[in-house]
Amino acid sequence: MDIEEKKSLTSSWFKELRDKFCKEFEIIDGTSFERTKWDHKYEGGGEISLMKGDIFEKVGVNISTVSGEFDNDFKSEVKGTEETPNYWASGISLVAHMHSPKIPAFHFNTRFIVTGDSWFGGGGDLTPTIKPHKEIEFFHNCMKEACDSAHPEYYERYKKACDEYFYLPHRSEARGEGGIFIDHLKTDDWKKDFDFIKEVGLSTFQAITTIVRNLKNESWSNQEKELQLVKRGRYVEFNLLWDRGTAFGIKTGGNTDAILMSMPPSAKWS
Amino acid sequence: MDIEEKKSLTSSWFKELRDKFCKEFEIIDGTSFERTKWDHKYEGGGEISLMKGDIFEKVGVNISTVSGEFDNDFKSEVKGTEETPNYWASGISLVAHMHSPKIPAFHFNTRFIVTGDSWFGGGGDLTPTIKPHKEIEFFHNCMKEACDSAHPEYYERYKKACDEYFYLPHRSEARGEGGIFIDHLKTDDWKKDFDFIKEVGLSTFQAITTIVRNLKNESWSNQEKELQLVKRGRYVEFNLLWDRGTAFGIKTGGNTDAILMSMPPSAKWS
Repeated sequence: MDIEEKKSLTSSWFKELRDKFCKEFEIIDGTSFERTKWDHKYEGGGEISLMKGDIFEKVGVNISTVSGEFDNDFKSEVKGTEETPNYWASGISLVAHMHSPKIPAFHFNTRFIVTGDSWFGGGGDLTPTIKPHKEIEFFHNCMKEACDSAHPEYYERYKKACDEYFYLPHRSEARGEGGIFIDHLKTDDWKKDFDFIKEVGLSTFQAITTIVRNLKNESWSNQEKELQLVKRGRYVEFNLLWDRGTAFGIKTGGNTDAILMSMPPSAKWS
Repeated sequence: MDIEEKKSLTSSWFKELRDKFCKEFEIIDGTSFERTKWDHKYEGGGEISLMKGDIFEKVGVNISTVSGEFDNDFKSEVKGTEETPNYWASGISLVAHMHSPKIPAFHFNTRFIVTGDSWFGGGGDLTPTIKPHKEIEFFHNCMKEACDSAHPEYYERYKKACDEYFYLPHRSEARGEGGIFIDHLKTDDWKKDFDFIKEVGLSTFQAITTIVRNLKNESWSNQEKELQLVKRGRYVEFNLLWDRGTAFGIKTGGNTDAILMSMPPSAKWS
């Protein structure tokens, strides 16, 4: 399969998955998403779908397909740029911050990157305030099923990578309760890699929609809401201080609204 | 004057100024500061004074005197470390976030750094939501008076440096309405440099206390408070994405509570 066909298949899939998430979240919440298109500074662009609902306090789903040339400053940090500074990237990114502190915040993304090389990345993870043990276990099981469909070692590998990545060294705290984190996925079977990435999306879809439905009718106290706001402060700290994607996007002139879609609707610091 | 005497004079001044700020803020607000001592990971430490009052929603004043050795990663970023990795640093840092969106947020710090070289740094600036023109002008005039007491070119130079530093490239926005920003101040007259740094502190004291008293009885709307919370989101973005002091402190294992004392009590993102 040539690279143009791969680009077409992956970008179509991310769009299809975006539609699937948005449709189901609208059914759960009873609120509609608003869509905003944006242009990349070089070529391509994306679309942010944003909902501020009754259950989802703020949920954003962004898809984008962009291309361009890396500046010299960043070339050295990216694989496959030895011979050409050109890149093409397509992906979907989702961040859900819930009104209820009983429902975790969710983060998911998958992407396909093409430079001189090409690879997949992404993952899903959850950040609860009040920890719903059954639902956390369910989330991890969904991630495990997606991983097991591709390779018996993937789950352990990508779960560990997630724990290592979503960590705040300055607080000696994990951002949340983990999930999976995949980078530079490229085996000798592109079709199989792509199927795995699709499975990660579908499993995350199942995990989030099931957990939100399970927990959406639970009540909460003001004190629990305060804890959630402080937890969100930590989420902000991670994303702005440590997240490589955020720093990379901001410092290479990416679309600020799309990159900072991940910010919670509100946060507190003590 | 030998360097030990300079260390002693500067650290004593920062403590004296801390006491002056805290005492006056307690009179204005009618609330007491709480003090927490902290130890540096190598040597020395500091003291955070924090007040959550009726006018000051959150105001922190931190003083610290620390020493140690720079890791190789950071040595190259700091002046005077060619021959020795040792450093000594003392300073005062103040951040005030007000309940009222009619009163600007204030930031001030001054410091004396000793490596193989030695120099002063610091400054003061303000971040209003609703812009009080008379008070913004008064703030700048106070900064100008401090600068003019030392050198006719300082005000223009340090005002420009402030505008350049407190800028969010990813938003094409200034953080606030400026002030002065001084780095690597070292003339051939240490005593004069120190006098100037003291003047910056005293002028900032005059500016903040006058402006808070001027504006503290003005009422505000919910809509104005919302604007303040969004403005604070930008403040968080600047401090975590772009502020060199924050990144340096966090990544060299500085005291997280002291470094992130600057975080607003609450913030929002749309």
